[in-house]
Amino acid sequence: MKWRTAVRESDSAAVRELVAATGFFTDEEVEVAVELVDETLANGKSSGYEFVFADAPDDSGRLLGYTCFGAIPMTVSSCDLYWIAVAPGKQRSGLGGQLIRESERLAKGLGTTQMFVDTAGREKYAPTRAFYERCGYRKAAVLDDFYAPGDAKVIYAKTL
Amino acid sequence: MKWRTAVRESDSAAVRELVAATGFFTDEEVEVAVELVDETLANGKSSGYEFVFADAPDDSGRLLGYTCFGAIPMTVSSCDLYWIAVAPGKQRSGLGGQLIRESERLAKGLGTTQMFVDTAGREKYAPTRAFYERCGYRKAAVLDDFYAPGDAKVIYAKTL
Repeated sequence: MKWRTAVRESDSAAVRELVAATGFFTDEEVEVAVELVDETLANGKSSGYEFVFADAPDDSGRLLGYTCFGAIPMTVSSCDLYWIAVAPGKQRSGLGGQLIRESERLAKGLGTTQMFVDTAGREKYAPTRAFYERCGYRKAAVLDDFYAPGDAKVIYAKTL
Repeated sequence: MKWRTAVRESDSAAVRELVAATGFFTDEEVEVAVELVDETLANGKSSGYEFVFADAPDDSGRLLGYTCFGAIPMTVSSCDLYWIAVAPGKQRSGLGGQLIRESERLAKGLGTTQMFVDTAGREKYAPTRAFYERCGYRKAAVLDDFYAPGDAKVIYAKTL
């Protein structure tokens, strides 16, 4: 895997394709993921978003996974993991865990003491929740009816 | 009290003065409150923020209280009450409750089914938490160490 943190122009399309391909996000969510890339391309570090990209080591250089995280405004040292996505063919390969660990390492280097990440409470997201728990995250909150009536938001936290 | 929802140019300075005068917000938080007003002045409804303003009924027309709320992106019908502030001289007058009820009424008219609001867990914010509970909000989550180590975020929710 080739690792990098700098955002490239091509990431706008690559992140769109990767996030959509997972099948875990709505069209609106895919647009938001792309917006964070585009904002960072336009405004650099002042956008407040950090990235870890994992590109295929072969000639294709295809984006196989990425995370996007950033300091939570109005907090002293909390960080939100906004996005993590792994290409369907690379899931269960350990890449997700590597992406999270690298993101935590970089966030800690920027002074983060608490990392937060959230997902949905629906059955479809049970593997996502299990993944965060395997990565050492504790379930900090369940907000019932958050995404929609009957669809909770589950917030995980990890002390770095 | 004179009620309105349209944002005026003068609200940028008025909200800054009001929010700072409460003594409950950091300089950074005051800037964020003003930014939401300025974004709405610049971009109108597309900014996604709704407001309720309570102006003094006398000739001064001074801003005595306001709320700012908006639909939470990527949710079907959840709304976040981003800001509520009441001038120090008008606290304990019932104005805060009126502002919340009017905001809930407008949010419900826009299709909101769940209203969320958050505050800090520190002792200083005990009156704020008691206020939300009196307004019918239930404590939905406590995120330890969110604002800073030892300073939790408390999330309240109300079904509209």
